[in-house]
Amino acid sequence: MTGSPFDRLRERLAEVSDLTKAATLLVWDQRVMMPPGGAEARAEALGTVSRLAQERFIDDEVGRLLEELRGLEESSGYDSFEASLIRTTRREYEKATRVSPELVGEMRRASALGLSAWGPAKESSDFEQLRPHLEAQLELRHRYVSCFPAGDETYDVLLDDYEPLMKTAEVRQVFTELKDELVPMIEEIRDAGDVDDSFLRGEFDPATQRKLGLEIVRAFGYSEDEWRLDETGHPFMTTPGAGDIRLTSNFRPHDLSSLFATMHEFGHGVYEWGVDRSLARTPLHTGVSLAVHESQSRTWENLVGRSRAFWRWFYPRLQQAFAAQFGSIDEETFYRAVNKVQPSLIRIDADEVTYNLHIILRFELEQDLIDGRLAIPDLPDAWNARMDEYLAVDVPDAARGVLQDMHWAGGALGYFPTYALGNVISVQIWERALEDLGDLDERFERGEFGDLREWLRQHLYTLGARYTPQETIERVTGSRIDAKPYLRYLREKLAPQVA
Amino acid sequence: MTGSPFDRLRERLAEVSDLTKAATLLVWDQRVMMPPGGAEARAEALGTVSRLAQERFIDDEVGRLLEELRGLEESSGYDSFEASLIRTTRREYEKATRVSPELVGEMRRASALGLSAWGPAKESSDFEQLRPHLEAQLELRHRYVSCFPAGDETYDVLLDDYEPLMKTAEVRQVFTELKDELVPMIEEIRDAGDVDDSFLRGEFDPATQRKLGLEIVRAFGYSEDEWRLDETGHPFMTTPGAGDIRLTSNFRPHDLSSLFATMHEFGHGVYEWGVDRSLARTPLHTGVSLAVHESQSRTWENLVGRSRAFWRWFYPRLQQAFAAQFGSIDEETFYRAVNKVQPSLIRIDADEVTYNLHIILRFELEQDLIDGRLAIPDLPDAWNARMDEYLAVDVPDAARGVLQDMHWAGGALGYFPTYALGNVISVQIWERALEDLGDLDERFERGEFGDLREWLRQHLYTLGARYTPQETIERVTGSRIDAKPYLRYLREKLAPQVA
Repeated sequence: MTGSPFDRLRERLAEVSDLTKAATLLVWDQRVMMPPGGAEARAEALGTVSRLAQERFIDDEVGRLLEELRGLEESSGYDSFEASLIRTTRREYEKATRVSPELVGEMRRASALGLSAWGPAKESSDFEQLRPHLEAQLELRHRYVSCFPAGDETYDVLLDDYEPLMKTAEVRQVFTELKDELVPMIEEIRDAGDVDDSFLRGEFDPATQRKLGLEIVRAFGYSEDEWRLDETGHPFMTTPGAGDIRLTSNFRPHDLSSLFATMHEFGHGVYEWGVDRSLARTPLHTGVSLAVHESQSRTWENLVGRSRAFWRWFYPRLQQAFAAQFGSIDEETFYRAVNKVQPSLIRIDADEVTYNLHIILRFELEQDLIDGRLAIPDLPDAWNARMDEYLAVDVPDAARGVLQDMHWAGGALGYFPTYALGNVISVQIWERALEDLGDLDERFERGEFGDLREWLRQHLYTLGARYTPQETIERVTGSRIDAKPYLRYLREKLAPQVA
Repeated sequence: MTGSPFDRLRERLAEVSDLTKAATLLVWDQRVMMPPGGAEARAEALGTVSRLAQERFIDDEVGRLLEELRGLEESSGYDSFEASLIRTTRREYEKATRVSPELVGEMRRASALGLSAWGPAKESSDFEQLRPHLEAQLELRHRYVSCFPAGDETYDVLLDDYEPLMKTAEVRQVFTELKDELVPMIEEIRDAGDVDDSFLRGEFDPATQRKLGLEIVRAFGYSEDEWRLDETGHPFMTTPGAGDIRLTSNFRPHDLSSLFATMHEFGHGVYEWGVDRSLARTPLHTGVSLAVHESQSRTWENLVGRSRAFWRWFYPRLQQAFAAQFGSIDEETFYRAVNKVQPSLIRIDADEVTYNLHIILRFELEQDLIDGRLAIPDLPDAWNARMDEYLAVDVPDAARGVLQDMHWAGGALGYFPTYALGNVISVQIWERALEDLGDLDERFERGEFGDLREWLRQHLYTLGARYTPQETIERVTGSRIDAKPYLRYLREKLAPQVA
């Protein structure tokens, strides 16, 4: 290999990125296109491509280059491409090389086994079927944690995989603030009586839902040139390459959740879409963390997609498309229905407010597990007790309780908090955008979302992963992560229901 | 790495196979699904994955293992999995390691450049635009040929890439036999007057064509479990893994060519589908050569799909689906129309008979080029002269002449003959199948194709690439490649038109 050490590092990282993008496509295709008969071959191909990407990254040559490049990093400005790439790569390299390939392999296998066991266990609502897998996962997490120097808290190591450099203590502080205000707020709303949303359930032709979803995201910035929208069971967004953003949604025939899922995935997609293209084929060409990513999916799903102004624009179109269901429902009634707050069992169906408590519950249980305060066999009871405490909801069975999510079965401990952090961050960024752009309602009412998208692109998306998540949030909002703007937003929005 | 040398070879080959399958999916997705904005990133990912597959294969370790395994190869039976794998791998390894990575890279780049230039050159029917690329390709082919020991003929080296171990002299003999009989046959048919096929052009709803195509290939053996059928401009078949067969067709709104294209691609697909699954993740898990592959696409497209018995089954369905077009056309008239022989300009639209002369012309010109008897600037004139000689067709411009195919622009010299060899081989295999199965007409008339498919699977498909193409053909048919059965088939089928 020739060229400067920096060129050689870039070349190596480009190769790793290419392999990772190939793996991304293998997964997208598996979930969206592949006939079931291809499963075995696909697992093999995916295993090989992912392993090679990992091997090429943790190779000693990368370590040597990073050492050689300390001088360049120090002499380049902190904001420079060179310093950002070397800094970020070093951090990821040091993490990756701490864990033995054997442990990585064991975790990957346990994850596959756990995920395979999860479906049937949930199906039969039998926690016992999943218990040994969860115990194995917990044991592996302990081994994983022991690869790293002891931090302030054990959970810090788990959190760092999803929200780099974020500390458990900081999340706890944010979540305590949320909990202290949201638990009573939810009680108040419950006492205020019911909002009618029965008209949101009925017959909604999936093809029409897809057309409407496309109409919305086209107004947001989706184009056929660089995007796709396909159907899946569990909506997700992925990008197999710069300029190639793939959304999926589930067009369920009996409700309109696909519209919100499509906007949600658009938010993830537009973040990736907006990253500075000159960062392509480096580890900087991606959203900076799961929480910041979620802040953008929630921005487009909730701050935009559940706003009055948005529905002033779109409700007439929806009414026209589903005249039988909405002919006699006025905009105000519809708006209140899609913003209805009501404690319920299932996280992914939860409203904007109660959603956070589903997350806080999981965050607390995860810490209890990893710190040894809670044993896996006692998990269902602990779950049910907290559901009662926070949401006054009775859990009738494990399927609708502790077995509802696949995350723990796959070994993902530390992931859940990023969902609620995303809610918090979304409003911090939103308030800054409004300071610059002024009130956006009139633009939304006309179906114009370009100013918001461009502001977000220029201030956030373009940065990619040049900085840490915390640096990124501070650069965009001027402050650290802070629950107050989000709580203020919820109070204002829900005043009619609370009052 | 641990395990026996044979296990280590298998492991290495499995890795190469996984990378190759990943590359296959990257290409399928690019042609069928990818938004155009993803082109640049896809080219990079594909380049990296293909290069790694090549590097892992030509690695010295593979050479060492092949040396170590000479003993095992000799002590195992010729037909054993072990001997077949070692033998085939050695042959491919020895070929691959003869060509320097630099030359491979140059050829890949020149191919990409040539293919990019081909579209616009054809669009403006300007041979001069493509000429420098063709000259570069020819020069690269000379350098490629010089990597190998001199064979009987220079062209042997080119042919070997598509039809391993086949010699130019053997192809020439087959083609001479074809030409001697087909040129006068075509003249006779022309003198016999016109067959009416005007009703094959009109309005044919593409969605209905797709439904009909699926109905046909489902009767042939397609199932949703292991197959897909998608739309593209240029139909092709590819398989990103065992149990995952992907057909594409082009549902053009003004003719029914998609039905034949779908059957053609099914033929390629069912060959891959039928390869013994225990060969998966080895170089043996594939059709043995392009000619044998084409024999199967032509079997299902022509021997089945243009037969009387097939249309006795399917014509009533077609008539029902397109009542306006076919209501007054009887089965005999329709059958004659889809079997009409008429010299024309474009290879891919040519009928079963004249198609071969399009190929022979290209085969002869390719030899003239590589042997220096013909210079690139003189190629258009040579093309036009031969079109007149073999088909009595006047070529009005380069777009409908020498520029019509992309193969040469991409550097693929030696590929074309496999198309006509496929026709020849298809009937050799067909006759053997009929000997075992008896007359198939009644089964086809009832829409039953399972006996044929199973015979082909058991006698041909399952073998994969265990043996050489010639060995494979001899095992299935009992003889070497032979034009006589094919000529006999054409004479019998076309007797009404010739008479």
